[in-house]
Amino acid sequence: MAETDQGPGPNVAVLCGGVGAARFLNGLVEVVKPSAVTAVVNVADDVTLHGLRISPDIDTIVYTLAGAHSVERGWGLDGETWQAMEMLGRYGGQDWFSLGDRDLGTHLFRTDELRKGRSLSEVTAEMARAWGLELNLLPVTDDRLRTMVTTVDEGEIGFQEYFVRRRHEVAVTAVRFDGAAEARPAPGVLEALSTSDVVVIAPSNPVVSIDPILAVPGVRAALGTRSDSVVAISPIVGGKALKGPADRLLVELGRQASVEAVGQWYTDVASILVIDEVDAEHVEKLEGRGMKVVVTDTIMARPGVAAALARAALEAVIES
Amino acid sequence: MAETDQGPGPNVAVLCGGVGAARFLNGLVEVVKPSAVTAVVNVADDVTLHGLRISPDIDTIVYTLAGAHSVERGWGLDGETWQAMEMLGRYGGQDWFSLGDRDLGTHLFRTDELRKGRSLSEVTAEMARAWGLELNLLPVTDDRLRTMVTTVDEGEIGFQEYFVRRRHEVAVTAVRFDGAAEARPAPGVLEALSTSDVVVIAPSNPVVSIDPILAVPGVRAALGTRSDSVVAISPIVGGKALKGPADRLLVELGRQASVEAVGQWYTDVASILVIDEVDAEHVEKLEGRGMKVVVTDTIMARPGVAAALARAALEAVIES
Repeated sequence: MAETDQGPGPNVAVLCGGVGAARFLNGLVEVVKPSAVTAVVNVADDVTLHGLRISPDIDTIVYTLAGAHSVERGWGLDGETWQAMEMLGRYGGQDWFSLGDRDLGTHLFRTDELRKGRSLSEVTAEMARAWGLELNLLPVTDDRLRTMVTTVDEGEIGFQEYFVRRRHEVAVTAVRFDGAAEARPAPGVLEALSTSDVVVIAPSNPVVSIDPILAVPGVRAALGTRSDSVVAISPIVGGKALKGPADRLLVELGRQASVEAVGQWYTDVASILVIDEVDAEHVEKLEGRGMKVVVTDTIMARPGVAAALARAALEAVIES
Repeated sequence: MAETDQGPGPNVAVLCGGVGAARFLNGLVEVVKPSAVTAVVNVADDVTLHGLRISPDIDTIVYTLAGAHSVERGWGLDGETWQAMEMLGRYGGQDWFSLGDRDLGTHLFRTDELRKGRSLSEVTAEMARAWGLELNLLPVTDDRLRTMVTTVDEGEIGFQEYFVRRRHEVAVTAVRFDGAAEARPAPGVLEALSTSDVVVIAPSNPVVSIDPILAVPGVRAALGTRSDSVVAISPIVGGKALKGPADRLLVELGRQASVEAVGQWYTDVASILVIDEVDAEHVEKLEGRGMKVVVTDTIMARPGVAAALARAALEAVIES
């Protein structure tokens, strides 16, 4: 991409969930200056457990970009141990949400700082600095925002209870974002979404990772007015979610587990959809509905794929 | 002691701080049935850090009686690791109170259960059961009770800030127990102190471990009416505290660092004082003030000393 090789390069804002977004960002910071990237991160997965404030998507991004994540496990930190959880288990305590010992240090810090009255934005920026990250990492809001999931057998439960305790194996009839109406975008969020040259919607779960970001007042509108330069990357590949329950959630909520459904989901906020090569057959229908489509390798398991994907997403906007 | 060899044996209540009390209890449960022992434990050292509820004296007793304590370190758990604290340090977080990873599991459990509305007594009993302990372990109160220390250079600070952060190296001008006037004895405390055959005041810090127990309304009176069968063990040996700042605190608060000062401290609640052999010269003066004195080895570093000390303390009451 000529821009990044010569000049200051484009400023890029990315709407982010957890693992998929983190992998994408890792590629993105290879092709644009990290300081030109603003990640706007979902916080509706956040949970308070044992009195500790846990922000799983923020932490996944920090750990991954710092190269401190566990590649084998697919989540959490490398070199992690589980002594605290073993002890909690001895007491018969609530140990369904497994917190590694190293990871606990992050939650102790965040909890302390928030109790002192600092905002989640401030704490997140400090964490990013501590790990030597140069990208701008913003929680979408400093206010309380919580994904609530209505299940067929337990009624409405918190997201982590659905995702971790129930291992997202239970059917869902509704999803809502508690606190969304009152939540204010965190400082810098609307600015980044308005002034960035490109906005990317990361290959995260549209229903429970991206939608809570869009639900914060002002965010959807900020994208809607500039959807020509907003590019979404489908987290659905060949009718399946690469990770997590996005495919099942889409079906349970009356959509399809397909790139077409993803395109429809983002129709008012993005004009470009990046899909995997296995989904090339859907290009015609997507384009028929007015969406520009980029077909490329989106499975970021092999080295180089994330950077190529990031480059393709940016080029789709900048060359258009 | 004949009683324990033949029949049901005496019921014993013990007023307890942390390490010294834990060592004494370890000896006591060798000479009387553990189920006949009720430990009434100081909670004025408790602290909330990072949102977690920490009860150092209770935990020290549980870990020690369970044989899970670190003998080398002198506090905390064996096989402990410090991954959470290392991570907290990376962020520049508040890490002056070192919480081991295993230990954190205890605090996560306690915090959860208290947040559910259970009492500290209930949580403590459950912890003791989880470690297979048979003695009755009672916090002196389920209400908030906090030792506040007035220092010459920082004014009034919390006990752990004095004890751990300042390493008890700063001079103290006053000690008070915040919440004492409103605190109610935990269920079973006054019963144990009234109906036990013997009450032992463990070799704990009189100023900051035992005094907060006595400050809970009803406790001092319960002992005062039966002080003939209350035996205190001096934590001052040869003019020095075996551990911690008891010697300096006594001097700073206008007393002496001596077994005589300890005897005077307990004059209204105990009629018998156990002192170490190195302090035999003080027997006359103590007896002159109406205190019965037992002289024995009180340094519980070697195996067998704690049990012999417990036996001597009980015999002083039962044979009197």
